[in-house]
Amino acid sequence: MTSDTPLPQVDFRTEPAQYQHWRLDIAGPVATLTMDVAEQGGLVPGYELKLNSYDLGVDIELYDAVQRLRFEHPEVRVVVLTSGKDKVFSAGANIRMLAAAPHPWKVNFCKFTNETRNGIEDATACSGQTYLAALNGTASGGGYELALACEHIMLVDDRSSTVSLPELPLLGVLPGTGGLTRVTDKRHVRRDLADYFATKSEGIGGKKAVAWRLVDEAVPRGQWAGIVAQRAGELAGRSARPADAAGIQLTPLAKTRTASEISYTHVRARLDRDRGVAEITVRGPDGGPDGTAPARIEQVHEQGAGFWTLAMTRELDDLILDLRTNELELGTWVLRTEGDAEQVLAFDQMLLNHRDDWLATEILLYLKRTLKRLDVTSRSLLALIEPGSCFAGSLLELALAADRSYMLAGVFEEIDPDAAPAAIEIGPASLGPLPMGNGLTRLQTRFLGDPDALATAEKRAGEPLTAEDAERLGLVTFAPDDIDWDEEVRIAVEERASFSPDALTGLEANYRFAGPETLETKIFGRLTAWQNWIFYRPNASGPDGALRRYGTGQRADFDRKRV
Amino acid sequence: MTSDTPLPQVDFRTEPAQYQHWRLDIAGPVATLTMDVAEQGGLVPGYELKLNSYDLGVDIELYDAVQRLRFEHPEVRVVVLTSGKDKVFSAGANIRMLAAAPHPWKVNFCKFTNETRNGIEDATACSGQTYLAALNGTASGGGYELALACEHIMLVDDRSSTVSLPELPLLGVLPGTGGLTRVTDKRHVRRDLADYFATKSEGIGGKKAVAWRLVDEAVPRGQWAGIVAQRAGELAGRSARPADAAGIQLTPLAKTRTASEISYTHVRARLDRDRGVAEITVRGPDGGPDGTAPARIEQVHEQGAGFWTLAMTRELDDLILDLRTNELELGTWVLRTEGDAEQVLAFDQMLLNHRDDWLATEILLYLKRTLKRLDVTSRSLLALIEPGSCFAGSLLELALAADRSYMLAGVFEEIDPDAAPAAIEIGPASLGPLPMGNGLTRLQTRFLGDPDALATAEKRAGEPLTAEDAERLGLVTFAPDDIDWDEEVRIAVEERASFSPDALTGLEANYRFAGPETLETKIFGRLTAWQNWIFYRPNASGPDGALRRYGTGQRADFDRKRV
Repeated sequence: MTSDTPLPQVDFRTEPAQYQHWRLDIAGPVATLTMDVAEQGGLVPGYELKLNSYDLGVDIELYDAVQRLRFEHPEVRVVVLTSGKDKVFSAGANIRMLAAAPHPWKVNFCKFTNETRNGIEDATACSGQTYLAALNGTASGGGYELALACEHIMLVDDRSSTVSLPELPLLGVLPGTGGLTRVTDKRHVRRDLADYFATKSEGIGGKKAVAWRLVDEAVPRGQWAGIVAQRAGELAGRSARPADAAGIQLTPLAKTRTASEISYTHVRARLDRDRGVAEITVRGPDGGPDGTAPARIEQVHEQGAGFWTLAMTRELDDLILDLRTNELELGTWVLRTEGDAEQVLAFDQMLLNHRDDWLATEILLYLKRTLKRLDVTSRSLLALIEPGSCFAGSLLELALAADRSYMLAGVFEEIDPDAAPAAIEIGPASLGPLPMGNGLTRLQTRFLGDPDALATAEKRAGEPLTAEDAERLGLVTFAPDDIDWDEEVRIAVEERASFSPDALTGLEANYRFAGPETLETKIFGRLTAWQNWIFYRPNASGPDGALRRYGTGQRADFDRKRV
Repeated sequence: MTSDTPLPQVDFRTEPAQYQHWRLDIAGPVATLTMDVAEQGGLVPGYELKLNSYDLGVDIELYDAVQRLRFEHPEVRVVVLTSGKDKVFSAGANIRMLAAAPHPWKVNFCKFTNETRNGIEDATACSGQTYLAALNGTASGGGYELALACEHIMLVDDRSSTVSLPELPLLGVLPGTGGLTRVTDKRHVRRDLADYFATKSEGIGGKKAVAWRLVDEAVPRGQWAGIVAQRAGELAGRSARPADAAGIQLTPLAKTRTASEISYTHVRARLDRDRGVAEITVRGPDGGPDGTAPARIEQVHEQGAGFWTLAMTRELDDLILDLRTNELELGTWVLRTEGDAEQVLAFDQMLLNHRDDWLATEILLYLKRTLKRLDVTSRSLLALIEPGSCFAGSLLELALAADRSYMLAGVFEEIDPDAAPAAIEIGPASLGPLPMGNGLTRLQTRFLGDPDALATAEKRAGEPLTAEDAERLGLVTFAPDDIDWDEEVRIAVEERASFSPDALTGLEANYRFAGPETLETKIFGRLTAWQNWIFYRPNASGPDGALRRYGTGQRADFDRKRV
């Protein structure tokens, strides 16, 4: 990979039979996910993935494995993350790949890997699948950051294995996948020790790593297998996962991709390169064979990956990743829905009525994570709410995630004067189960500091709301009528395309996360911004920068001015 | 100003008689601070400060005025911020200045202006000096952001005056002084309206500005003077400031600056350009004429600007600003103290015993703000705690603000074998009155998530602690003895100088603010990082970027890739 290497179109779909870099072994409640990266298996030519270093392709498999464990293996209660190499757990993100990658590739790569690590924490916190990092060798940089996403970190105590964050001293960049935030805010390493740690490229092992809280235990190699198995058993015992549940298959996604359209069963996107816009439409449930939402939870299990909410979420998830990675110049995403709002609400209700069912819970959690992925996507999001749409319940979240929403007051007189005017409806899905990264619902974030407006809006839950009502309640941004609609929407889209893409990214990143901060918002809001800046500066990425000079034997030549 | 213009050495010391850009009028409890920028009065040649646009020089005067109002005019209860121009309040930061300024100058400028606006909020919140923005004309960009720092915003309602944040549409950058954060998190403007607002360069005025919460009231020009006076009176009525207090004079700072040293009465800095280090020493109180801290609060008033805590704080404040702005390549600040710890504690106690005295309160608040300035300074901070030092009470905060601290165990055998070993002492000043920007004390931040360690350390308040104790309690990072000291300290300083300055800035910005987030930490942590990145990208600062092309009649030529 060099800056001139044409970047491949990345496909995020995979399955265990295709894995090149990971092995997934399941023994009852304990799954072992073994990282054994194929050196020659890079996604892009030009680098070798030595020492379990990784690139986007390795992380795509990890993401797939984490997802499949949740849906296909409900019996799994603990996931042991370990290495198939002899003396190394993982050397982190591949440096040559990073050094040669264009700026957007670096940033996208970091964002996706961050989301996967957040997903690991979500599995531990919400799904009863606890991740245990069994570091059977040195974990550096992103390798240690992967361990930091696990609930319990074990490090082999052999006088040579360490954990480290060598990015700053060796590469002149920051640890890019949440390491700085998790060290202080999650593991509560004292900030001055954390400072020392992040400047010591050889890392820290053994008892000192435990004393500094960098790992939870250091285990002699002789006792390693036994104690790892023991810990796995202990963590499995904490889980409330059902022992006898049968998973569902995440069957291959049906996807068609042309130069101008990406389409799935329930989701499609028209790619308008001239205007820099992706027009995304999410279709509500078709209602299944009998025309309605399933009445019994058993039917949800039977439908499995075909159950509308899950199918739509998988498609939306894949679309977001595809557009983010492969379509950098489509800067505005226009979000529409179409279908029957009652059906959307019925599917929501089915899931919400069965929060004790592992699959219903998993589907909601996956939808939560996918909406969060939308929240942190560096594209302008405009929701258009028109007759025939179904922004109700869980799909209302799409409009609430948007930077702006336009809702037609009345109907398009020339197109369909007899249509029912658009309506939106707050359902129970908007009142708690799908929080944003800041821990608040999208409604709470929208009405931050205005509890009266929030209460007034929430009181109207369960009621279809007209454009006039929705605007008055503050649930949509603008409600133009037929006469003004085309002009207002056109201007909004054209204006967006005329602005600095960088400034829009910064603006949206600031506005989307008002209110309280969490580990997640700090990672995406603060850490990512610093990393982007550092990545872009010549001290890292210039020809004499640390990232480019790494491994050449030459030291970086820094502009020493502090900014 | 062009990129080749040599930058001036900036002096932050000024006084009202020297103001070029502001008028300060005081009428009993109401002060009026009138912005009337001298077009030809730019700090650097090459731009004109039209329409009350400002540069660093304008903001230095504003900072001085805010400080003097607090100390010299305790009778003032409300400060009306208004414009001396006819139809404009302020056009914000001068665009040609920004376009031509080198990257560190832009960043430093934004940081200082942010600190001044935070200081305005601090005066309102803590000093009973409430700021009222009387926008007698359009307030754009930084002009509106200045208003956002005020408690109450009045906008003249004349069909032409608006408030706006036109940075994104016109310049391809973000509002740089907290606007995005204050709009959502302070004024609770709905995020989608805030999005629209920040893309509409002509801004919003009149009733809509009120309805959207952008301003508090829109007042017809005919009633303007009367209603401004009425509001000022109402806000003054809320203040608990004493009516009969007599201010103290902030006399000129005695400062000597050579190529290798900056020195004041209590603070000095040796500038070691070869090593990239500023060696800063803060001297404890000399004890005044009678050798001890004053016994009565009246003596504090009599000593005024000579009172040690205030004098030291003013010097430290000026030094931080000087080094930050003028010495970009001194990337590491080594912090030392010398003097009598008991005296430091006695001065602290004097102030803490008189929290009901306006001056004692102001001095503590100023110390708080100055320590916060240190916290957000993009330099590596190393504290060295040696025999003869006085890291006790308020001065312990310097060590707690440092990224790392080294405390000598024992004494320097060859230099002074009979010296008393260094001790540190937690005093009441560390337990509440000097919080960081995250709202926590430095001790709470240090022991984030470890309440036992915090309690154990706090229990030792009031006791001089040896290096061994301090290390065991987690109050210092390392406690080498005489044999290891030189080597350990030398390596720490040399290593720091060898690392990427950018990566250090990012690392420190992340580590220094663990835990909860506030308006302040969001501004310095998140907003600043995005702004730095955007400033650095060609879409803003390249020859075809929006910032450089503004006013040329040519549109910016953007790289449309979203990152």
